[in-house]
Amino acid sequence: MATRYVFLFSEGDGKNKQLLGGKGAGLCTMTQLGLPVPPGFVISTEACLDYFEQGEQFPPELMPQVRAAIASVEKAQGRGFGDPPNPLLLSVRSGSAVSMPGMMDTILNLGLNDDTVSGLAARSGDERFAWDSYRRFISLFSSIALGIDGDHFHRALETLKRDRKARFDTDLSTEDLRNLVNIYKLIVRGNFGKPVPSDPYEQLALAVRAVFASWNGKRCVDYRREFKITSEMANGTAANVQAMVFGNLGPRSATGVAFTRDPGTGENAFFGDYLTRAQGEDIVAGIRTPKPISELRTEMPEVFQELLGVREKLEKYFHEVQDIEFTVEEGRLYMLQTRNAKMNAAAAVKTSVDLMRDGVLSKEDAILRLNPSQLSQLMYRQIDPRFKIVPIAAGIGASPGAASGSVVFDADEAERQSRAGRKVILLREQTKPEDVHGFFAAQGILTAVGGKTSHAAVVARSIGKPCVSGCGDIRINHLEKSASIGEHKIEEGTVLTIDGTAGRVWLGEVPTREPDMSEELNMVLRWSDGFRTLAVMTNADTPADALRARKFGAQGIGLCRTERMFNAADRLPVFQELILAEGKEERQRLLERLVPLQKQDFKAIFRAMEGLPVTVRLLDPPLHEFLPSEDEVERDIENLKRFQSALENINQLPDILKAVDPHLGSVITMDTVMVKNLEKLQRFGLDKKAAQRKAEVLRKVRAMKEVNPMLGHRGVRLGITYPDIYEMQVEAILEAAGELIKERVDVHVEIMVPQVCTGQELKYVQGMIKRIEKRVSERLEVAIPYKFGTMIEVVRACMRAGRLAEMAEFFSFGTNDLTQATFSFSREDAENKFLPLYNERRILQDNPFEILDVKGVGRLMMITVEWGRKTRPDLKVGICGEHGGEPAAVEFCHSINLDYVSCSPYRVPIARLAAGQAAIKAKRGILNPPK
Amino acid sequence: MATRYVFLFSEGDGKNKQLLGGKGAGLCTMTQLGLPVPPGFVISTEACLDYFEQGEQFPPELMPQVRAAIASVEKAQGRGFGDPPNPLLLSVRSGSAVSMPGMMDTILNLGLNDDTVSGLAARSGDERFAWDSYRRFISLFSSIALGIDGDHFHRALETLKRDRKARFDTDLSTEDLRNLVNIYKLIVRGNFGKPVPSDPYEQLALAVRAVFASWNGKRCVDYRREFKITSEMANGTAANVQAMVFGNLGPRSATGVAFTRDPGTGENAFFGDYLTRAQGEDIVAGIRTPKPISELRTEMPEVFQELLGVREKLEKYFHEVQDIEFTVEEGRLYMLQTRNAKMNAAAAVKTSVDLMRDGVLSKEDAILRLNPSQLSQLMYRQIDPRFKIVPIAAGIGASPGAASGSVVFDADEAERQSRAGRKVILLREQTKPEDVHGFFAAQGILTAVGGKTSHAAVVARSIGKPCVSGCGDIRINHLEKSASIGEHKIEEGTVLTIDGTAGRVWLGEVPTREPDMSEELNMVLRWSDGFRTLAVMTNADTPADALRARKFGAQGIGLCRTERMFNAADRLPVFQELILAEGKEERQRLLERLVPLQKQDFKAIFRAMEGLPVTVRLLDPPLHEFLPSEDEVERDIENLKRFQSALENINQLPDILKAVDPHLGSVITMDTVMVKNLEKLQRFGLDKKAAQRKAEVLRKVRAMKEVNPMLGHRGVRLGITYPDIYEMQVEAILEAAGELIKERVDVHVEIMVPQVCTGQELKYVQGMIKRIEKRVSERLEVAIPYKFGTMIEVVRACMRAGRLAEMAEFFSFGTNDLTQATFSFSREDAENKFLPLYNERRILQDNPFEILDVKGVGRLMMITVEWGRKTRPDLKVGICGEHGGEPAAVEFCHSINLDYVSCSPYRVPIARLAAGQAAIKAKRGILNPPK
Repeated sequence: MATRYVFLFSEGDGKNKQLLGGKGAGLCTMTQLGLPVPPGFVISTEACLDYFEQGEQFPPELMPQVRAAIASVEKAQGRGFGDPPNPLLLSVRSGSAVSMPGMMDTILNLGLNDDTVSGLAARSGDERFAWDSYRRFISLFSSIALGIDGDHFHRALETLKRDRKARFDTDLSTEDLRNLVNIYKLIVRGNFGKPVPSDPYEQLALAVRAVFASWNGKRCVDYRREFKITSEMANGTAANVQAMVFGNLGPRSATGVAFTRDPGTGENAFFGDYLTRAQGEDIVAGIRTPKPISELRTEMPEVFQELLGVREKLEKYFHEVQDIEFTVEEGRLYMLQTRNAKMNAAAAVKTSVDLMRDGVLSKEDAILRLNPSQLSQLMYRQIDPRFKIVPIAAGIGASPGAASGSVVFDADEAERQSRAGRKVILLREQTKPEDVHGFFAAQGILTAVGGKTSHAAVVARSIGKPCVSGCGDIRINHLEKSASIGEHKIEEGTVLTIDGTAGRVWLGEVPTREPDMSEELNMVLRWSDGFRTLAVMTNADTPADALRARKFGAQGIGLCRTERMFNAADRLPVFQELILAEGKEERQRLLERLVPLQKQDFKAIFRAMEGLPVTVRLLDPPLHEFLPSEDEVERDIENLKRFQSALENINQLPDILKAVDPHLGSVITMDTVMVKNLEKLQRFGLDKKAAQRKAEVLRKVRAMKEVNPMLGHRGVRLGITYPDIYEMQVEAILEAAGELIKERVDVHVEIMVPQVCTGQELKYVQGMIKRIEKRVSERLEVAIPYKFGTMIEVVRACMRAGRLAEMAEFFSFGTNDLTQATFSFSREDAENKFLPLYNERRILQDNPFEILDVKGVGRLMMITVEWGRKTRPDLKVGICGEHGGEPAAVEFCHSINLDYVSCSPYRVPIARLAAGQAAIKAKRGILNPPK
Repeated sequence: MATRYVFLFSEGDGKNKQLLGGKGAGLCTMTQLGLPVPPGFVISTEACLDYFEQGEQFPPELMPQVRAAIASVEKAQGRGFGDPPNPLLLSVRSGSAVSMPGMMDTILNLGLNDDTVSGLAARSGDERFAWDSYRRFISLFSSIALGIDGDHFHRALETLKRDRKARFDTDLSTEDLRNLVNIYKLIVRGNFGKPVPSDPYEQLALAVRAVFASWNGKRCVDYRREFKITSEMANGTAANVQAMVFGNLGPRSATGVAFTRDPGTGENAFFGDYLTRAQGEDIVAGIRTPKPISELRTEMPEVFQELLGVREKLEKYFHEVQDIEFTVEEGRLYMLQTRNAKMNAAAAVKTSVDLMRDGVLSKEDAILRLNPSQLSQLMYRQIDPRFKIVPIAAGIGASPGAASGSVVFDADEAERQSRAGRKVILLREQTKPEDVHGFFAAQGILTAVGGKTSHAAVVARSIGKPCVSGCGDIRINHLEKSASIGEHKIEEGTVLTIDGTAGRVWLGEVPTREPDMSEELNMVLRWSDGFRTLAVMTNADTPADALRARKFGAQGIGLCRTERMFNAADRLPVFQELILAEGKEERQRLLERLVPLQKQDFKAIFRAMEGLPVTVRLLDPPLHEFLPSEDEVERDIENLKRFQSALENINQLPDILKAVDPHLGSVITMDTVMVKNLEKLQRFGLDKKAAQRKAEVLRKVRAMKEVNPMLGHRGVRLGITYPDIYEMQVEAILEAAGELIKERVDVHVEIMVPQVCTGQELKYVQGMIKRIEKRVSERLEVAIPYKFGTMIEVVRACMRAGRLAEMAEFFSFGTNDLTQATFSFSREDAENKFLPLYNERRILQDNPFEILDVKGVGRLMMITVEWGRKTRPDLKVGICGEHGGEPAAVEFCHSINLDYVSCSPYRVPIARLAAGQAAIKAKRGILNPPK
């Protein structure tokens, strides 16, 4: 049986996005809901895949099915495809299962040629419209299907407009457009060697080919990689062929893009832009700044009312905010697209609350529809409201959040500078799909032209970058790579701050402050808390971090690193002395200076976390990280030597002079040289010692040098070779806890050992803690309960989980180190050397340091949990690596029955939401099982 | 019920070595076999453990049981312990379940005091003997039980001998000995504060305490650590208390040590030494050079005949060569010890063959009794027989093998120099147990005094180090740290060569050659081959290595590293250019120069291994290993600069001179300076380019620097980032194979990919190989069969074994890297920083880079095998890390059903034997199951 590749809108199954693509499915659904959709059909994604499978050839069944479908459209429209007196024009649009805005290609007005353009003019009674459509067709078709650079057409249009002193396209006359068509034809001949084919079926075949080809084009492939769109999520693109309707057919025609609710705030208000006398791409490309949809109410009241009905019908059907495209042709409304709206986090959260309250969504669905990663947008810093300086420009607040950076004028430069570690703001007249890599690289985006639905706005919102669009005061000089805003000259490197919430621009860097969590966000997170079984803890090393995390809902500290307690300005010199000290007594003396300082640190953190567990990790980094580098010490020694020899020369000066003239020498000795340099010479005496000391430091630094520091002398290995350091830490922790307990503060201490690879290490430290606990609790006369556990960050610890659980009451996966050990990747080396290529070539889907590697590291984790709990069924197991706040990792942790995740304070809300979603999915049986 | 701690020799269970120790069990067995053993009893190892358990106190039951046993001995001997007229004297000897020669303590003549010495004199009718025994007792007891430095007694004896012009102890008169006793008593008072207790029970209690204490003494603990004697193998020492018999009682008395067969060759000939008028320790300590046992046949014919009977009886009973100690007291033979003989590898192999042929042992038992690691002795180099220079000295060939090194005069120095990477020969008058660390450090041992059973000989044989003992021409001056051999002056650092097989010493380094495998060894290995199921392959990178391994029985190459093919003198410059090259064409040109060179290498190896598989590993090390280090390049650049500026000055010289005197300047220009320096100046021109080039190298070297090279850009990661290198290698391999196949050579190529962590990597390389194979086989018009597989050396590869096995036809564990990744230990850092302490504190039992870590790495291996074979049931799995030739690892590999092990050529025989043993043990159900 021949494969069915072609589905009329009235036939296609709107639920089957995989086959029909999102756009096609939406058109089918709308058609079948009785909404006004111009007739057309979908060429399925399967046709696209078979096209590539067969060496970029159409499957033989395809074109006959297309011809049959066109016959049906011709019949419905009463027009003929390529029929000169009464031509049917078509649009061809791509559309895959996952929406990739602006990524794939669209061709309009297909079917026009020198013959049919006259027919169109005659039938529409609008010659100007016909020629406007024709010139649009040629430029769009040529750039997409023939591969001619669109700039040629753009420049020709701009030149003509300048000639005619036309401000907008609409100011051009029919004659102008007819000329333009001729110019365009010359461009096509010049660049392509032959004209645009006049046979409409040939046009159609080329257009469908171009749509298919765009799926494997660089832009599209990059986008899928960036957004991690796998072939399971979307495979191939459909091509949607539809009868044209014309937003550019006279003043009662228009085209528009709208959201059923405000995608920036979530407010339940119809939201969008439209342009009269325009075709769809004019809005999306941001070529003219459009009017807000509210103006349509007065400009075309019936159309507006009908649109409100459509809006209601669609939300009711999809249970989701919709992003729609429509065209008004001579006062008649046509729907061209509907899809679930991309919203920023605030809007997504607000609409979840509203839809749940309105009974459209259940609480579970209201939670599930949110993207946890997106919440980080709400954690973005905002312009400090106390900052009163007047902005230099205002535009449209197209994507919220504040950002500062140096201006760059193109996406490549943005990428280059960002790679070099610079924060940049991408400033463009308007953005295009090929600029997307610049969005990822930039802190924020600022455009001179375009509304809330312009390319810049849509993309910025979808990736959560601040964006100000349509900032009309900006004048860009592309040649000079400079711009002006009012009297301000902006050059590459000028620092700007933008506020994408309010649509403001400032010169220089502006102070920002932390965000508050909105009431809606708190509500959604509380709902999620009601479902989740995973506890969410935080990684915090200071009382300030601890309090912040607590505000975001952290249920304790899962990782309190102690290295900062050695690095602070008042401790580092003491700790460095300790590292250099040889004698037992001297070590003891230095350690005793550190105990009270660390005890104060611990007390402050325990107080901040009163009532919640605080997991303290004993010292982890190698000692050489606390000493200056070899180069630094060598430089210091060199400088000291130079200084000394300079002083020695000064010192000899009087003697030399005395030899010349005894009297003179002594005068100078007493007077000029000696007195002046007395101080210096005293320092010289000291410096001799300093030099010795530095030499000693150098010796030690060299002795501590490691070939592979990642696999070196650190963590518990230090605790065993220098037990006095761990003893000091344990004493400080337990004294802090004990003293607070005596003050009736509710303290829950957990002590965690890093880098463990064998049970004996844990046994050693456990013995040490028990001894110290006995001593401290006797001295303070108070019981000090504590839990004892281990990081799991060495592969051998996974293999020995059963043995470790004999001693450890809890495990905490350190997935950063564990990932390095599992892959034998050194993170900094891998990310600088081969990992980008690995991701590009799809050797690895993700950077495993960002996205938890479920198949490798995850499998080790599963084994560990299983073996650990075999020994100790109530073993508490969590994760405290960077992955702890990454939604997919949180879901995985739920699926392997961890007890908690721990992440940075700002990621706590994300983890709370992701944990709730995981629990709901598990309940519904739709959670991915661990592999 | 009270614990039974004491067992009479007539009662104890000779099979229970754990309880009675080896020596005690032997004495019980001999007694119960009816051999002439002086009566006595064993205080069990349990008593020792309880002694430590109870805070170094005897358990209360102990002494009453001892008194009862002594009563029984008194009765048997008709003497009284401490009875002045008729004293019973006792020996107290330690003895644990595992023989630790010379490690623990022995006290003789216990029961003597000022009263009983007279009784002994009267009863023996030999006053001299009584006082000789008494002085021996005081010195031995005081140094062992009272902790006085034995050197005091030794020096007093030597002083006295010098005074009396006595050559040997036996030349001293009764009066001399009586005086010596008085001097000894003064030494004891001076060093201990009070005299040796006269109460014999007090003496006994102190002696038993000393024996127990020796178990936890440093010497003993070090020994157990070095020889990996765990507490399951031996826990605590027994104390053997036995009636004294006297080898020093007149001319018809003697003491001897013998082996039932020659422990150096395995020859079935009675072998040993004896001394008349001596006590046991005189022989073991090598104080006088003893007579060979054959002389006993004429000196004491009846005793000799009786001894031959004992010899036969013991071998028949134990089915093992025995190491015995005996004493002849006034013509009567007494047996004091029997234990399984420690033999060198040649002897062990020969006796296995002989005992099997004589029907004493089954083939299986003949295999099982051998220690595979010992075979490496047979792989030692021998003095090249073509070397005809006369040695400077001859001694006893006490432990076979040849070794060269610089002389050191004490064990600590041996250890120091060996740590610094120097090869040393330990030269001593005689060795003592406290010298053992020097044995481990030295290449060989040379002593002036002592026979084949001296301490030096026994220890050297047991650890397989060459040893020449009793080299009487050596005169040592300890103060000056020098020695002389004939007219040759030997100082610290003088290089000597010793041949422990023939007992010869040469000045300087003497050429050596490879060993041949003896017929007996070949026979035993063939027997083992008959049992084993594991194949034994070799790691070989050159045809020479391959042929050598084949001679030793290797069944193919399990690991052929290709890095040497880039490092050879004719390739390295080309490969370095390649690393620095940027352009595709230049790279191609350089690669094309490498292909034919590598092809020749592969052809030679394939030919050498005709009929057997050759597993070629594609390039593994990071590219920076092929470039000079950053420091080196910086130094080069510095030197070039200096040279250039020097030349510039010379260059300016004529101008300067011309300015002074135009005529002079031109003369010098033409003549002296210019001509002389013309060549230099030309080089200068070249050097300018050289400096540029060096700067380029420096840039590249810096760019390639890695923070953790162990986890860096290497293995397949290189193959993916620089595919042309792998392509070149694959082309060379397949062309070599194809061309040989056309010549009808039987080639079995296996291509192995290193550092794989994900299936995509393997898929990538597999695709590359398939493409190249197609091209090469079409060009050569011959099919080139090959196998494709992967190293398993990254933890993630273990986790993804099921996926990797979809592509890989074989797995080969790279346990060196896998161990590093599993422990997160960088081998060089760990071994220099914390691993020694970890071993000392028993945090880790072994160095996991030497002994495979079964519990961690081994568990990963098990999982990998299981998951890999689930995908591909006939997956071939092997190991090619250094562990591949380590017997315990071989046994483990058998237990987890690997197909092969691969090891260095010299370890192939070891692996063959270990694999046979593992199969036999498995058959008998005594193989350790994997944990």
